[in-house]
Amino acid sequence: MTALKNDRFLRALLKQPVDVTPVWMMRQAGRYLPEYRASRAKAGDFMSLCMNPEFACEVTMQPLDRYPQLDAAILFSDILTIPDAMGQGLYFETGEGPRFKKVVSTLADIEALPIPDPHKDLGYVMDAVSTIRRELNGRVPLIGFSGSPWTLATYMVEGGSSKDFRKIKAMLYDNPQAMHLLLDKLAQSVTSYLNGQIMAGAQAVQIFDTWGGNLSAAAYQEFSLAYMRKIVSGLIREHEGRKVPVILFTKNGGLWLESIADAGADALGLDWTCDIGNARSRVGDKVSLQGNMDPTVLYAKPEAIRAEVGRILASYGKGSGHVFNLGHGITPEVDPEHAGAFLRAVHELSAQYHE
Amino acid sequence: MTALKNDRFLRALLKQPVDVTPVWMMRQAGRYLPEYRASRAKAGDFMSLCMNPEFACEVTMQPLDRYPQLDAAILFSDILTIPDAMGQGLYFETGEGPRFKKVVSTLADIEALPIPDPHKDLGYVMDAVSTIRRELNGRVPLIGFSGSPWTLATYMVEGGSSKDFRKIKAMLYDNPQAMHLLLDKLAQSVTSYLNGQIMAGAQAVQIFDTWGGNLSAAAYQEFSLAYMRKIVSGLIREHEGRKVPVILFTKNGGLWLESIADAGADALGLDWTCDIGNARSRVGDKVSLQGNMDPTVLYAKPEAIRAEVGRILASYGKGSGHVFNLGHGITPEVDPEHAGAFLRAVHELSAQYHE
Repeated sequence: MTALKNDRFLRALLKQPVDVTPVWMMRQAGRYLPEYRASRAKAGDFMSLCMNPEFACEVTMQPLDRYPQLDAAILFSDILTIPDAMGQGLYFETGEGPRFKKVVSTLADIEALPIPDPHKDLGYVMDAVSTIRRELNGRVPLIGFSGSPWTLATYMVEGGSSKDFRKIKAMLYDNPQAMHLLLDKLAQSVTSYLNGQIMAGAQAVQIFDTWGGNLSAAAYQEFSLAYMRKIVSGLIREHEGRKVPVILFTKNGGLWLESIADAGADALGLDWTCDIGNARSRVGDKVSLQGNMDPTVLYAKPEAIRAEVGRILASYGKGSGHVFNLGHGITPEVDPEHAGAFLRAVHELSAQYHE
Repeated sequence: MTALKNDRFLRALLKQPVDVTPVWMMRQAGRYLPEYRASRAKAGDFMSLCMNPEFACEVTMQPLDRYPQLDAAILFSDILTIPDAMGQGLYFETGEGPRFKKVVSTLADIEALPIPDPHKDLGYVMDAVSTIRRELNGRVPLIGFSGSPWTLATYMVEGGSSKDFRKIKAMLYDNPQAMHLLLDKLAQSVTSYLNGQIMAGAQAVQIFDTWGGNLSAAAYQEFSLAYMRKIVSGLIREHEGRKVPVILFTKNGGLWLESIADAGADALGLDWTCDIGNARSRVGDKVSLQGNMDPTVLYAKPEAIRAEVGRILASYGKGSGHVFNLGHGITPEVDPEHAGAFLRAVHELSAQYHE
């Protein structure tokens, strides 16, 4: 494999010195980019983009070609590939988000679920990783990812997106054994899926716990964090002679940073409700931090975006251990020029904190 | 005025001894009750219920008649009465939630907004308070309420409900002066509105900051909490020879409890993501706590509901200063029998913590 030309992202995750704070954006290959919309129109629909390694590679590269400041690429895929590979029948309805043909309701449904084999059942993702890695040719590191067991389970039990998660919460409180069996199967699946991505060339992995923050403090520990900890302990942590950092991101998990920092990962993702300086003092030297600008700041003018970047950098303060990012994915209506202003501001304003 | 027969709720807010932990439910007069749905059908629509003091009184009393365990009544009204009284033209579209005919977009729009006079412009709310208070006849205390300035502003600037608050966030970051003028006018309006409710008979008041938790930590302090603090400092705190406690509730505000506890209120509302025992140790003796069961627990079976009530009571521990509630409003699909099981469990399981 080609040597990495830009390893700022990996270095910051491991708290090694960097020249400027590295930056990438969650959902950086996405609908705010006209070139992405063109590729999607060509592919037909969202899942055709994900399932075709050439298309997945094409859209992964687009933001890197547009923004030379980006310090990492992220695999273009969906978080619901695992439930789909378990036979749930993922599909997308316009304006409705993801849906499943089968819904998991009973212990029998859960017992019948297979653990997908990453190469046999999710080969298109492994192929996308190796294709992208080849195309990157050492430009920046490639991030692999998966949804967390709890987050995947919400879609499987609710049958799609949900406002209040009433079906899965009823299952959690009425039938915790069934809930644990489902989460355990998902944790096994995520572990081998992420290890497959690492072996195919992912140089860091992120677990997206998008809905863990909707649980009570006690339920979060038992039904979300415990399974992420289990995954982390089963991951390949070194490959190609280099550490493979793991990032855990629980949206709305700011109350629980101390316990998330104890789960064994190298870094935590922060949404924008946490002050990053305060978060740094809470987690100490245990982990690096990734985040955390409110993505809607990108609707403001470039001067305001720059000011907010400066505020966050100052809050984190001097030294390595910070990967700049948004606190959640970039939204489709953002002006690509504003995204560019954001990325430039991170590099320009952060050098002073790394002298 | 008749002496209060049950003052547990007011006593707990002031940390005075009680026999059992008092309980009420946000949105307790609501669509989960068949008697409410019947009243609403009779009235025609939601705003007709709110604007007719007899109807508002009727639906306020319904949960009290059904559940003898309820330790407080809450004024039946909408949080958007103030923007409506400012001339924004509130209306409801089925399945869409609240909408405004006029949208606030510019500094000129904000400068033109009047500060409503509670008696002249919101007389129907004052009449509802006095009517309900008379009908209660000392049974339990009556809670008045308002939306927070930030929360009201989100609806006024977005024109209704919003997923990501992009218009108001752009205003906040691009034009903070305009944002502050709007919030200042709303803080003045909320102060006189709540004082009007107190003079009309409200025995405690709650400020609902439903959307403050969507702000960055820094923006929350400057654009939401600062204005709630201003309101609290302007409220009538004693009436009819008794303290009038003030409750601040920022949904998803668990990260900022220490600073909310410093805003001068008597109690904080907690959503279910906070562990209440941990919250108690963070705020110390400064404030009482209200909350905090996940409302979706009410979709589970009565035994599971009872177990969760027991867990929360144990986490809070011994002594006064806890008003039991849900962490957010009860939802329309909840079985009224489950709500009853919840309320009974609070009284039955809490006596041991007040011996």
